[in-house]
Amino acid sequence: MRLIIAKDEKEMSNIAAQHLLGYMYQDRRVNMAITAGSSPVGTYNTLIPQVKNKLYFSNVHYYNFDEVPYRQEDREGVTISKLRELYLTPANISRENIHVLDQYNYSKYDEIIKKDGGLDVVLLGVGSDGHYCGNLPGTTKFGDMTSKVTIKEKSKKHILPEFDYIESHLPDYYLTMGPKSIMAIQNLIMIATGKEKSDIIKRLLDGPVDEEIPASILMLHPNLTLIIDADAASKL
Amino acid sequence: MRLIIAKDEKEMSNIAAQHLLGYMYQDRRVNMAITAGSSPVGTYNTLIPQVKNKLYFSNVHYYNFDEVPYRQEDREGVTISKLRELYLTPANISRENIHVLDQYNYSKYDEIIKKDGGLDVVLLGVGSDGHYCGNLPGTTKFGDMTSKVTIKEKSKKHILPEFDYIESHLPDYYLTMGPKSIMAIQNLIMIATGKEKSDIIKRLLDGPVDEEIPASILMLHPNLTLIIDADAASKL
Amino acid sequence: MRLIIAKDEKEMSNIAAQHLLGYMYQDRRVNMAITAGSSPVGTYNTLIPQVKNKLYFSNVHYYNFDEVPYRQEDREGVTISKLRELYLTPANISRENIHVLDQYNYSKYDEIIKKDGGLDVVLLGVGSDGHYCGNLPGTTKFGDMTSKVTIKEKSKKHILPEFDYIESHLPDYYLTMGPKSIMAIQNLIMIATGKEKSDIIKRLLDGPVDEEIPASILMLHPNLTLIIDADAASKL
Amino acid sequence: MRLIIAKDEKEMSNIAAQHLLGYMYQDRRVNMAITAGSSPVGTYNTLIPQVKNKLYFSNVHYYNFDEVPYRQEDREGVTISKLRELYLTPANISRENIHVLDQYNYSKYDEIIKKDGGLDVVLLGVGSDGHYCGNLPGTTKFGDMTSKVTIKEKSKKHILPEFDYIESHLPDYYLTMGPKSIMAIQNLIMIATGKEKSDIIKRLLDGPVDEEIPASILMLHPNLTLIIDADAASKL
Repeated sequence: MRLIIAKDEKEMSNIAAQHLLGYMYQDRRVNMAITAGSSPVGTYNTLIPQVKNKLYFSNVHYYNFDEVPYRQEDREGVTISKLRELYLTPANISRENIHVLDQYNYSKYDEIIKKDGGLDVVLLGVGSDGHYCGNLPGTTKFGDMTSKVTIKEKSKKHILPEFDYIESHLPDYYLTMGPKSIMAIQNLIMIATGKEKSDIIKRLLDGPVDEEIPASILMLHPNLTLIIDADAASKL
Repeated sequence: MRLIIAKDEKEMSNIAAQHLLGYMYQDRRVNMAITAGSSPVGTYNTLIPQVKNKLYFSNVHYYNFDEVPYRQEDREGVTISKLRELYLTPANISRENIHVLDQYNYSKYDEIIKKDGGLDVVLLGVGSDGHYCGNLPGTTKFGDMTSKVTIKEKSKKHILPEFDYIESHLPDYYLTMGPKSIMAIQNLIMIATGKEKSDIIKRLLDGPVDEEIPASILMLHPNLTLIIDADAASKL
Repeated sequence: MRLIIAKDEKEMSNIAAQHLLGYMYQDRRVNMAITAGSSPVGTYNTLIPQVKNKLYFSNVHYYNFDEVPYRQEDREGVTISKLRELYLTPANISRENIHVLDQYNYSKYDEIIKKDGGLDVVLLGVGSDGHYCGNLPGTTKFGDMTSKVTIKEKSKKHILPEFDYIESHLPDYYLTMGPKSIMAIQNLIMIATGKEKSDIIKRLLDGPVDEEIPASILMLHPNLTLIIDADAASKL
Repeated sequence: MRLIIAKDEKEMSNIAAQHLLGYMYQDRRVNMAITAGSSPVGTYNTLIPQVKNKLYFSNVHYYNFDEVPYRQEDREGVTISKLRELYLTPANISRENIHVLDQYNYSKYDEIIKKDGGLDVVLLGVGSDGHYCGNLPGTTKFGDMTSKVTIKEKSKKHILPEFDYIESHLPDYYLTMGPKSIMAIQNLIMIATGKEKSDIIKRLLDGPVDEEIPASILMLHPNLTLIIDADAASKL
């Protein structure tokens, strides 16, 4: 594992973007899973002008690693919609380079990825409860591959904001690559910023591997880079 | 993870030897950690005639991943002695290609390996209690790197045979690469044969990741190949 | 470059098969281009029993690197037919793992391969005139990618035997991956046996890079393994 | 081969720096050969603030690929001195991460590099005559490894400026990694800027492989990235 402490969010975003570019610049097909959410916004903003309309990046294929489908099936899910808004659309990524996880293909998603040559790298964030992707405490087991997770009553309030508080949109389940699927990716890049992440970062680096802290398993991946800012590192 | 079920121990040994040769034939420095014990005997016997005195294998460097030193410090430990007997000496591996873990360098062993370019591959067995290397249940934590493990009273009887039952040879501790050190290796090859391994194999493939079953964590390595014979696979 | 001198053709075949298995055993998609012709027969015979009906080899995809189509377009070309006979059919390789170069796709073949993740390894022979694939002296330039080569009058007699001397089958052209396409493959394995190859082997190892000896460029590939028997090595 | 056309020298420098960082950020030993001269100045200036005093870059080892020793042997050669001035000293690279080619070790330099795990990447420029490193037209052959090149009378005037026109400093020879040594590096990054490079760039991309244009061979490397600015691309 490699730990990189940047002085602030801006430097963190810059370093994360450089990491991703390091893979993208390779002269071969590169399969990347990327994260929605707020942590990567700066990273995507750094990437967009460098990637937009650059034909030499046609080797880069994008995958999403979790999805919360709308109850109505006539629109795309929350994660891919967010990824389009944050990065894929402003970077003008072409349709055939975007591979979408959804309720129709999730049971074959690990298989599809394998056939595509496997994922080379994933960019992921970590929650203050240690969750990553849709692997929230108490939902998936370390050995799980991509699967459907039932949304429990108590989780609803966390997911509702994603649907602008319109309860009728809320589905009964979401989809996520499981810990074993994520561990199977060749390189992991995890980012975190802010004092509210300082406890979980300390816990991940010093504490035991424990299913209640889902991201704790990722600390044992052979090629993990953890990029955090000084605030997130403040308790180390 | 890739599971290969061979029809018998001979086929398993052959397949494991081919895997190792696959790495060894690469035209660059290759760092391999290999296991003493009884499981790999057939594999080594297959390898020896193909490796002995072949100058083009000077790119292959060997490392041991655990060691039980003699109480008297004037002779090499149990593991490296066994590795010499089983493979290194009959294969006539040159001195400068053998890197020995011992009581003098264990605290820097992870660092040394990193400087040498990292381990490319490890060949390891698994005990019916789920141990691998010196990671016995109740000794190391998943997050441990290479470390010194105190030999508890109740473990002594297991280790004594290694010292021909001469109690005065028995040390107070042994050394082992920990789970985190092993997970940091780029490729893992695990072998197992015989009905007495069928329960642990089933447990590893179907059961949870649990520190009491040390090898359970290895199932989440991105590049693990498990090669077993039909007997070891009989409960799957 | 790595040179391996085996004592005879049997050992050469065995070592070449081990090399290929080394790639095939990797737990990710592996794209291999393989050669028809007489040199690899022993290698394929070694591989077939180990590969046949082994589901864990579903990760291996096969490509041919040249083709001589029949003048009549209602049957497959000479190379792929030979590959089926020598290896693909007896090894029972499934249809979806076989990727065929032909007169319909040759102009996009480099592109197709790139999209499939690139070729990981190629097994090729070398002619006593230094040709490999369809890169005969005086046909392609070092900078050529996959292309169509017109069959000149004087070449016809060399190609006619492939068509059982039935002149009406003989096409006006053949297709081949060019030197630049072959150099773009991540790993090259070249095999040669017999005294009739001893001159070209010496020439390749000691002589200059020269378009008249097409294989001379391959000596500068960063990951080339040359496996030859003692006869082919007899002039070194 | 991948061609990246940047809009100006600044963008070229930035992209080249990102490429290098892509390798440097990997969590394993990375061996890089880097170039002195004027082309990489912008790249180094971009890198220096990001690399200086960053402990997590202790995995990166630097090598020079050519050297012109002073006639007097009591000071370091021209290339390494320039590299120190341009990058190694301002970036505060530690002594043990700098590996120097000189007149004492050149005959074993390829061997040393192999033992260190091989070079992962090289950053090189190209002259308007197609030279790279010390491979000037008429000096080395495509098949040459690291070697000593006698300085001919007519070359002296080109080299003299490097020695501030002090003729007594001028040696009889210089040292360079040859074409075969450079082709053995896993990844090549070549940079060029300015209209005065537009002819050679066109020649490299469209013309034949020819020993009189030394860099022409590099166009066949499986992992070459060519990063040039709009001026250097103006004749494409």
